[in-house]
Amino acid sequence: MTDPLHIFFHPRGVAVIGASENPTKLSHGVIRNLVTHGYRGTIYPVNPRGGAMLGLRVYESVRDTPDPVDMAVIVLSAERTVEALEACGQRGIRAAVLIASGFGELGAGGEAREAQLQAIARRHGMRFIGPNCVGVVDTYAPIDTSFIRTMPVQGSIGFVSHSGAVCGGTMDWASAVGVGFSRIVSLGNQADVDVADALDSLSADPNTTVVAAYVEGLPDGLRFVEAARRLTAHKPLVVLKAGRTPSGRRAVASHTGALAGADRAFLAACQRAGAIPVENLEELVDAAIALAYRKPPAESRVAILTNAGGPAAVGADALHRQGLQLTDFSAETRARLQAVCPSGTMVGNPVDMLGGPQPAHYTAALRVLLDAPEVDGVMTMFVPQAITPPYDVAVAVGRAAEEAEKPVVCCISGGGGIGAAARALHAHAVPHYLTPARAALGLGVLWRCRRIQTHPAGEAGLVTGDPRGRAQALIEAARAARGTVLDAQAGAELAAAYGLRVPPSGLASHADEAAALAEGVGFPVALKRVAPGVVHKADVGGVALNLADGGAVRAAFERMVGSGEQGFVQRMAPPGGLEVIVGAQRDEQFGPLVMFGLGGAYVEVLRDVAFRLAPLSAAEAREMVTETAAGKLLAGVRGQPPGDVEAVGEALRRVGQLMTDWSEVAEVDLNPLIVSPAGEGAWAVDVRIVLR
Amino acid sequence: MTDPLHIFFHPRGVAVIGASENPTKLSHGVIRNLVTHGYRGTIYPVNPRGGAMLGLRVYESVRDTPDPVDMAVIVLSAERTVEALEACGQRGIRAAVLIASGFGELGAGGEAREAQLQAIARRHGMRFIGPNCVGVVDTYAPIDTSFIRTMPVQGSIGFVSHSGAVCGGTMDWASAVGVGFSRIVSLGNQADVDVADALDSLSADPNTTVVAAYVEGLPDGLRFVEAARRLTAHKPLVVLKAGRTPSGRRAVASHTGALAGADRAFLAACQRAGAIPVENLEELVDAAIALAYRKPPAESRVAILTNAGGPAAVGADALHRQGLQLTDFSAETRARLQAVCPSGTMVGNPVDMLGGPQPAHYTAALRVLLDAPEVDGVMTMFVPQAITPPYDVAVAVGRAAEEAEKPVVCCISGGGGIGAAARALHAHAVPHYLTPARAALGLGVLWRCRRIQTHPAGEAGLVTGDPRGRAQALIEAARAARGTVLDAQAGAELAAAYGLRVPPSGLASHADEAAALAEGVGFPVALKRVAPGVVHKADVGGVALNLADGGAVRAAFERMVGSGEQGFVQRMAPPGGLEVIVGAQRDEQFGPLVMFGLGGAYVEVLRDVAFRLAPLSAAEAREMVTETAAGKLLAGVRGQPPGDVEAVGEALRRVGQLMTDWSEVAEVDLNPLIVSPAGEGAWAVDVRIVLR
Repeated sequence: MTDPLHIFFHPRGVAVIGASENPTKLSHGVIRNLVTHGYRGTIYPVNPRGGAMLGLRVYESVRDTPDPVDMAVIVLSAERTVEALEACGQRGIRAAVLIASGFGELGAGGEAREAQLQAIARRHGMRFIGPNCVGVVDTYAPIDTSFIRTMPVQGSIGFVSHSGAVCGGTMDWASAVGVGFSRIVSLGNQADVDVADALDSLSADPNTTVVAAYVEGLPDGLRFVEAARRLTAHKPLVVLKAGRTPSGRRAVASHTGALAGADRAFLAACQRAGAIPVENLEELVDAAIALAYRKPPAESRVAILTNAGGPAAVGADALHRQGLQLTDFSAETRARLQAVCPSGTMVGNPVDMLGGPQPAHYTAALRVLLDAPEVDGVMTMFVPQAITPPYDVAVAVGRAAEEAEKPVVCCISGGGGIGAAARALHAHAVPHYLTPARAALGLGVLWRCRRIQTHPAGEAGLVTGDPRGRAQALIEAARAARGTVLDAQAGAELAAAYGLRVPPSGLASHADEAAALAEGVGFPVALKRVAPGVVHKADVGGVALNLADGGAVRAAFERMVGSGEQGFVQRMAPPGGLEVIVGAQRDEQFGPLVMFGLGGAYVEVLRDVAFRLAPLSAAEAREMVTETAAGKLLAGVRGQPPGDVEAVGEALRRVGQLMTDWSEVAEVDLNPLIVSPAGEGAWAVDVRIVLR
Repeated sequence: MTDPLHIFFHPRGVAVIGASENPTKLSHGVIRNLVTHGYRGTIYPVNPRGGAMLGLRVYESVRDTPDPVDMAVIVLSAERTVEALEACGQRGIRAAVLIASGFGELGAGGEAREAQLQAIARRHGMRFIGPNCVGVVDTYAPIDTSFIRTMPVQGSIGFVSHSGAVCGGTMDWASAVGVGFSRIVSLGNQADVDVADALDSLSADPNTTVVAAYVEGLPDGLRFVEAARRLTAHKPLVVLKAGRTPSGRRAVASHTGALAGADRAFLAACQRAGAIPVENLEELVDAAIALAYRKPPAESRVAILTNAGGPAAVGADALHRQGLQLTDFSAETRARLQAVCPSGTMVGNPVDMLGGPQPAHYTAALRVLLDAPEVDGVMTMFVPQAITPPYDVAVAVGRAAEEAEKPVVCCISGGGGIGAAARALHAHAVPHYLTPARAALGLGVLWRCRRIQTHPAGEAGLVTGDPRGRAQALIEAARAARGTVLDAQAGAELAAAYGLRVPPSGLASHADEAAALAEGVGFPVALKRVAPGVVHKADVGGVALNLADGGAVRAAFERMVGSGEQGFVQRMAPPGGLEVIVGAQRDEQFGPLVMFGLGGAYVEVLRDVAFRLAPLSAAEAREMVTETAAGKLLAGVRGQPPGDVEAVGEALRRVGQLMTDWSEVAEVDLNPLIVSPAGEGAWAVDVRIVLR
């Protein structure tokens, strides 16, 4: 695909509006970075005062700048940024970076100003990044429109961030430990260019092999999912999202003014997109360097090579929590290790070379481990002691690991003075970590990446049938009755129209009608009171189950159903099935979400539920079932026969299809769906459908 | 209490056996540290070659050293360590630190050698630390028997570790960031002095206010729990335990030869002991500095003060995950913040001073926050930018926080060059963290500490009654029948003897006897087949429920019970109760553990269970119920009446008492315990008791 942000990285000329000679001003920093970080196009400082700075002529107006000027960096107050963008538009500049804050993040007043920017851009056919951002960096072009002092070295990590400070902090860390980047995009309020544009751009960039993103809001969630899917088809993507908790959402709203959205929807979006979500800043960089420097392991069997048993034990626990296992060495591997390690080495796993290994021991032992067929990856650890310098060990590890296909991570701990060791490791394509837990996360992310690659979500194809006609009539009837909740019979019919298995049913207005209806659908039946405003029927005693004959139906009707109310009569589902819940809601950012879990009161107290975006592929529906406790019960426990898991997956897909087809439907709840033994289906006995 | 390790920290003279003039040798490092780190007693290097080193006379034998010699540090190979310990014992030295590895961690051969050390110590009335350790440090005495180059500054953290490398790594970090320690105890294989001794010692040490422990194995778990309880009555304790996963257990076994034990037992032990468990090395030090420098917050309402919105949003999420919330500022607090913060500051929470705050702004704003009654603690954040030096911000934060009672943590991020800022913060009693998530953990640990202080576990008193006579008879009868599992009737009787509510029951050998028995206990009844080796009765179709009359009992007996087998007849529990499971097992390290969770198949798939050490206090039993999903169901969901939670707690305590009284009992399972509505009791209908 083509790079939608190409012009931001390869402008032939850049105007810097608001240029200042004062070296403490941000605009001075921008021009300094353009000059000193190697930009090869022409730089046009613009300031009404004119003059010269850093050897460049300062233009009094952007109108005066000579062609070509492909991009402007506007470093002015919020009010004057609006005017300047208009001037750039009139000048024919088609790309702009807007540094100022004071827009949407302020709330109502700022939002109006942000809308002005969007109107100007639309009028002139411009794209802009920001406002409230630090711009873009490309270490290969090269270009650096930020005012952050250090530019990272060339590397393969593409970095996208809604926060300028997160960019700055990451670049500061990267410089200290020698981690390279390809591109950095600071998006700020993303009033025009958004994270989806940035992902498409990094997808197209040949120098980027892995993308790390810090995001706050994803206003168009589906655009994000689609762009992320395009990217993850050939490059891994790690995402840190702020605002996943109530406190975080509050902080995000006041920062970039973004709506952080529901956490479960974000996680479902990551599932769909093949993205790897992480929880904090250290995990974001830890994951990025692992993915930048190493390939995923084939399987989950790892070895630890160490000079210290305690940290190795902590590392072993951390590896296990990442889903990795210590491998069992073959006799041959043990013998080869004995031959190259210092005497006294314990050649179990961990391989503990005790206090005195030389750098050469690390190289030799690591080569043995990387050769062993039972080893899929290695965590190398070194706790500095008085004798061997960490740098030498880093070079020794790097040498053995550099040419290997298998992943190697290296933990060298210490309070200070290990920057050189970290840089040496990174120069040899080995990610460095300060602690065993972080090194384990590095290997763990590679393993997650492997599982994403080998278990693709599958295409979310449509389920069969075209039930739209019947659905339309039911929804229109509910609307006509001014209802927002479909009555039980309409709900059952809509579900049946979508191919869900619903026991035969009907509505009755008096006891004799109910008894006749029961005769028609077949005994035993359930009778439910249907009254507006009564949602959880079990709460109000409005359900009678297992009514075996007409007399029982009549008695129950008389007892439960008031005058002016109706009774919903439905044949009972086959007995003995497991009750699960299938639900769907509509998320503001990501659209319809399908939910699966244990039925009844359990769903409320256990919170053991799976969410996915609709529509669902068959593989996704299966995954939803297997990852929950409900799925484990359905698999058959203690001699119980397995339930009809296929039918559950089918029901999940059909509910997802219903939500996808009808934006009028806000919620669907099958609570419970009663799951019969394998091959015998799953029954939607209580269908609740809410319209918007 | 007195310090059981007093002599190790205050010896009047120290002999170093195996002294070497070679500065790369460990023994040289030990003598160098004793000399240069301020030990004021006399130092006696011992080496058969004699001579002098570091200005000290080298004695040819420990026998030749003049009085007083209160301690020996033995730095020899494993074989020669045994001989040297014997020589020290003969010389009248009563305390020794053994550095060498090559003992229990090697398995069988090493274990024999370790037993020799124990025998020597017993014979001479000696105590020793190690083997396989780096000794002890006390920064106040001062004394440093380790060979680690840097000794930390004086502080209030007492550190205990099974791993010498973890001590070394921690001291290295502490020196770089200016964190002080009171004492460090490296325990190694703890063949004599163990972690419980170390905790008692730190409990008695007036310079220690908080204890951080890295442990691998806890062979005498109850000694650990008792010592930890004594300590946490007046000082907080943070524990990192390695070997909590299968991979970690394997690593621990090959490191210090320790048996790592079951994770749930360790967590239950922490609960009982009032200790705070952490998961990795960074959490251990992050928690220790928070507890060393600050008091716990009164409540969970915190404020964030920052110069960067993105990291603050990440921090807000991390605080939420620690159980803390962003507080709502009063109008007065907002006005006071406006008055002291830079213009443009967003005075929501987080308080975002944007790009340009001066150090004085931090001091003033932090004082406002610490004064506000709605703020229980503050997370201060600074992302370095070009203008303000991190050190100046650190001093400004320290000044405002130093005298405050409320907790303040400070996150100053950056790739390098912030050591001075960290040292300044620590000098002002503010813990420094590199990332928002770690700072949030610091505040979170303080909050956990508060909850431990305010919700003491209560004394694990005995439950009433003395049922030992009946229990003894039942257990002896089972033993006499060469059984390891009590039959259903004996199990029911033993449970009843312990005051558990068990429906009346009996055993029948033929159908008529069963019918008569049912008549006696009252209908409806359950009939269960009793046959050796059939444990989960539901698996084999050996249970008939709700038999309403003698005919039904007879028919079920004929159908289910084979010749030579028996039928267990029991009145049904009242219908409609919630099925939970109460269980107990015996842990190798910590003794009896009581378990609670949802009954039936759920316990196997949900793993939503609580564990505590027996015997249980009433408060602990209540906590077990409320922290599980079963407890939430028992509290009443969707109009269901609440279950008899008191009766469940009582049952848990009685099962705990049974396990405590009878070491012959290996396991108890009440699966299910059927819980009636509040006030109506809980019924143990299927009691399984396994003997050792």
